[in-house]
Amino acid sequence: MDLILIVLSSGVASLVLALILALKILNRKVDGENMLRIHKAIKDGAKAYLHRQFKTITPFIVVLAIILGLVLNDPFPGLTFALGALLSALAGYIGMIVAINANVRTADSSRSSLNEAFKTAYYSGSIMGLTLAGIGLLGVTVLYLLAGENPAQIVGLGFGASLTALFARVGGGIFTKAADMGADLVGKVEKRIPEDDPRNPAVIADQVGDNVGDIAGTGADVFQSYICTLIAAILVGFQEGMKSGGLQKALEWSFFPIAVMAVGIFASIFALLFVRVERDRPVIVIDQGIFATSVFTALASFFIANFVFEGNLNPFYIILIGLATVFLFAFFTEYYTLHNYSPVKAIARSSRTGAATNILMGLAVGLESVAIPIIIFCIAVFLSYQIMGLFGISLLAIGFLSITATVMSMSAYGPIVDNAQGIIKMAHIKDKRAYENAHVLDSIGNTAKAICKSYAVGASGLAQVALFSAFVEAASLSSIDLMKPQVIVGLIVGGMTTFLFSSFLFKAVGRAAFEMIAEVRRQFKTIAGLSKGEADPDYVKCIDISSKSALKGLFAPAIISIAAPLIVGFAFGAEAVGGFIAGNIATVLPMALLMMNSGTAWDNAKKYIETGELDGKGTATHASAVIGDTIGDPFKDTAGPSLDILINVIGSIALLFAALF
Amino acid sequence: MDLILIVLSSGVASLVLALILALKILNRKVDGENMLRIHKAIKDGAKAYLHRQFKTITPFIVVLAIILGLVLNDPFPGLTFALGALLSALAGYIGMIVAINANVRTADSSRSSLNEAFKTAYYSGSIMGLTLAGIGLLGVTVLYLLAGENPAQIVGLGFGASLTALFARVGGGIFTKAADMGADLVGKVEKRIPEDDPRNPAVIADQVGDNVGDIAGTGADVFQSYICTLIAAILVGFQEGMKSGGLQKALEWSFFPIAVMAVGIFASIFALLFVRVERDRPVIVIDQGIFATSVFTALASFFIANFVFEGNLNPFYIILIGLATVFLFAFFTEYYTLHNYSPVKAIARSSRTGAATNILMGLAVGLESVAIPIIIFCIAVFLSYQIMGLFGISLLAIGFLSITATVMSMSAYGPIVDNAQGIIKMAHIKDKRAYENAHVLDSIGNTAKAICKSYAVGASGLAQVALFSAFVEAASLSSIDLMKPQVIVGLIVGGMTTFLFSSFLFKAVGRAAFEMIAEVRRQFKTIAGLSKGEADPDYVKCIDISSKSALKGLFAPAIISIAAPLIVGFAFGAEAVGGFIAGNIATVLPMALLMMNSGTAWDNAKKYIETGELDGKGTATHASAVIGDTIGDPFKDTAGPSLDILINVIGSIALLFAALF
Repeated sequence: MDLILIVLSSGVASLVLALILALKILNRKVDGENMLRIHKAIKDGAKAYLHRQFKTITPFIVVLAIILGLVLNDPFPGLTFALGALLSALAGYIGMIVAINANVRTADSSRSSLNEAFKTAYYSGSIMGLTLAGIGLLGVTVLYLLAGENPAQIVGLGFGASLTALFARVGGGIFTKAADMGADLVGKVEKRIPEDDPRNPAVIADQVGDNVGDIAGTGADVFQSYICTLIAAILVGFQEGMKSGGLQKALEWSFFPIAVMAVGIFASIFALLFVRVERDRPVIVIDQGIFATSVFTALASFFIANFVFEGNLNPFYIILIGLATVFLFAFFTEYYTLHNYSPVKAIARSSRTGAATNILMGLAVGLESVAIPIIIFCIAVFLSYQIMGLFGISLLAIGFLSITATVMSMSAYGPIVDNAQGIIKMAHIKDKRAYENAHVLDSIGNTAKAICKSYAVGASGLAQVALFSAFVEAASLSSIDLMKPQVIVGLIVGGMTTFLFSSFLFKAVGRAAFEMIAEVRRQFKTIAGLSKGEADPDYVKCIDISSKSALKGLFAPAIISIAAPLIVGFAFGAEAVGGFIAGNIATVLPMALLMMNSGTAWDNAKKYIETGELDGKGTATHASAVIGDTIGDPFKDTAGPSLDILINVIGSIALLFAALF
Repeated sequence: MDLILIVLSSGVASLVLALILALKILNRKVDGENMLRIHKAIKDGAKAYLHRQFKTITPFIVVLAIILGLVLNDPFPGLTFALGALLSALAGYIGMIVAINANVRTADSSRSSLNEAFKTAYYSGSIMGLTLAGIGLLGVTVLYLLAGENPAQIVGLGFGASLTALFARVGGGIFTKAADMGADLVGKVEKRIPEDDPRNPAVIADQVGDNVGDIAGTGADVFQSYICTLIAAILVGFQEGMKSGGLQKALEWSFFPIAVMAVGIFASIFALLFVRVERDRPVIVIDQGIFATSVFTALASFFIANFVFEGNLNPFYIILIGLATVFLFAFFTEYYTLHNYSPVKAIARSSRTGAATNILMGLAVGLESVAIPIIIFCIAVFLSYQIMGLFGISLLAIGFLSITATVMSMSAYGPIVDNAQGIIKMAHIKDKRAYENAHVLDSIGNTAKAICKSYAVGASGLAQVALFSAFVEAASLSSIDLMKPQVIVGLIVGGMTTFLFSSFLFKAVGRAAFEMIAEVRRQFKTIAGLSKGEADPDYVKCIDISSKSALKGLFAPAIISIAAPLIVGFAFGAEAVGGFIAGNIATVLPMALLMMNSGTAWDNAKKYIETGELDGKGTATHASAVIGDTIGDPFKDTAGPSLDILINVIGSIALLFAALF
């Protein structure tokens, strides 16, 4: 098939372009000793943590790969599992290496030109987006070609990617939030020193956290959704194609999702041309990027669907629904989380009567924000099923995830400019323009982060529905009947798992933050002259606390997400696992949206007050909003995004073991 | 049948005993002008609010009754609906009238004797427990006898009771928490005056709130679970009996649940003899009461099962499982919420680093506390189904709810002694012994409240599973297949409804508290001499704010809980409603447990610090714990308990409309 060449070339093109961009950025020289010193501290901390994390999880992955091989009596799943783990780690790692070098370059160029700085940051983000999609597409496609007429063999890849992503997300999430909370609660609230002040001992750990959490963690998160969706769509396409017209059809249908992902990558490369900053309308920039990618992807899908399905445009319509869903998700996320709209303003106002009312209003907003996206989700799933059955649901997920490269570029852009702003402040840059430019860049970054978070929820939700379809086919179930007690039990336990999983994360962050706060307080108390800026704090000690806490918190969430579906499966059978997955979807979707949206809304309510609205910075109102923001941190950056991955780990392990239950 | 006489006599006996106790307590003269003045203010406020609430909902209930009659083309469901609403309101009202008269008498007798005071409070609580169970049992039994061979006619009763309970719970919950938060945040945190200080303008509203929320609201809550469970068990018993051996069996089987409830009432009366206070071991008192009731109920059930099922003891075993479930629920609730155990101590410790870490740890504890009770719940449901199928599940709920009268006695005891303590403080009683006695009584009350909350969750969860069984029979469904898209959509929307419903409640409490705080601050600022106790605050204004907010917040949650299942049902059919109910159970159970347990744990962490542990009262650590406690207020007293009722409103409306979907 000629299409295979197009697919492989899109994968290779994205990796080559990523390499070119990376060389261009890394070759840019930075002027400024102070900045480089801080940059080096961040870089060393981030690399050191990631290496420790890999070292910690490698034995676990290797043992699990061997167990998989033994239990399933076939080395292939174990090998693909290990490969999935490796690729997932690689995607996150490359993105992070670029990001920790891009931050200082963005900071440096913001002294001369806004557009230059924007491009540095955005292209660096694109390296992440392109690498991730390229590796994902090539990995799945090559295995798919190797697997030939037995595509079910590639399922291990998804499980490996999800599990590693879970580790990256959980570890990164704990690391970053322990540091962030420590820095904020002692620095901002108790000592009343500004954000990113170099006197604050936790400030470097905070910057490191942005990289290991928001870059490596989010990257691995979206990577695994990408892989899982693609695998599920291939499997369902193969089986439905088989039913519809034998092996030839099966191969064609299963190839369609791959082709759509490939054009999505081309579209993202193409859309890079459209992205530029405008001082007054920062949000538009992002919308334009997503819009250009979507239009190109839709157009190309039209032709591919026409070709593969011989004039039947149903698959194309479903891809359109998937793309439309991205926009609707993005719009409602913006509505509930940006301070241009009433919900965030209401949270800001309620800070006037203290932290408690601020927190309650934030929870109320988050709880409410769940409704419309879930209704949209349901409508999209229902329509797709009506159009093309189970395969339709998989294609919906493909449509949603086809523009991953563009969305991830934006997602990685956020922490890079956040870091750049931090470096400018910490290096005591005198240039006023640098501050202004960095501020504009950062405000775009916040919107981008919010949109990407809702994208990640939608992506993993749809990936899970696709995996569910694949599971149903793989387990040869004819029904999953809620009137059977084992299905109801599976369902309720699946729902409960979401809560138990979240509790591990909150507890880990709570404990880590507790230690961090104690350490930062200790340093302010014992290091003479620190408050006045006459002595340096011990940054390394804080990085160490974050690292240790993160590594300690890694395993409990992973073990529960592996063990729970297996226990249910082996005790009550495949149908109960179906109930388990359903109960998990029904709780994870709203929980993750609640956490992401509440967290972001608290953050932006605080920022709204900092723009001088209500009583402005430094007041009791502001202090209350800071507490809300702090509670929101593990909501939006630890528990929320980890829940995304939980459902896909569950989905892929269920799929892998479907035949054994 | 002779058993009918036993049933009717148990209902009548409970009401007569309640009347005797009520006369005894009301005839007790109170000595002390100050106490009587405060008592009168609380009484007037509570009665005024409840009357306004009834006035507000009556037109809604009447219109709904007429609509039901027209839509279902039968006046009977409309009439039973109205009757259910009336009985539910009556049960809550009687309990509250007794409670608002018992508080001052408890306060008065605590000056002379601990045991005297305990008996006054406990017997007053028992009036509520006995009235509620008596009215519930008599109401259902009489209608059951009237309905003859068509027991489905009594379904309206459950819907009426649930909906009215939802109003009572939501209204009471908003009222009490607005007042409580206002009183705490300005009084304790800002002004640093003690709890229940008469200078605080919101303090009377707070006491009123305990009565309209914890007494009338909780009473109506458990009442509706009681009614719904009984109705569901009758219907399922009837249909399963029909299948097993025709009309005679159907009548016998459907009568068995009624008989078990009747012996539960006798057992509760009997257990009154065992309840007395011991200064050192307050918790034991409660456990003994529940234990005595359970043993008696179990013994009696043995004989009834033996008689009705002719030697088949399976129903008896299921009743035993239900009773065991109560104990296990109570034990794990105590573990997660009392400060004798490590979870609450961990929350208290984390207050040392501020409100944010306190709140995160509280959430972590709440999220974790969900796991074991839900596993117990699942095991109980699964076992019961294995033993006797759908009817087994209904009987499990009957076993759990059979001891309602005892549990509710304890539940009502809590707010009475809480009020009594408040009256003693506000009336400036000089007697040290009165304070000590009131403190001992209150500490028992806190444990009782925690246990009753988890009881209410378990009760409505089991009631819902029973209603689900009845719905399946009524809709003549042969399966509820999660592989059908409409069932998955129903499931996800059912889960989402839980979040949206909670958002209404949080928003209502947040807004109400915001207004209350502003008003209390205003009074402290504008009323000269208030801070020094030289001038009286305007209590009535605060009661008015709470009332208005509560009435404003009544309808949105009620409308969504009625509309959501109807929309799903009419759009996608009965099977989708099955999915909806399942999604709702899977989210409500953990959400309600999370909210109740987090809320109580925050409260007790604060109380633990107030006993002088950690840094003790009046420190920054204590202030952080107070913020956690404040956030926990709407968790445990508004949203959590209202969720309980939400699922039963959904279950009973689905059952009522089953034939039309």
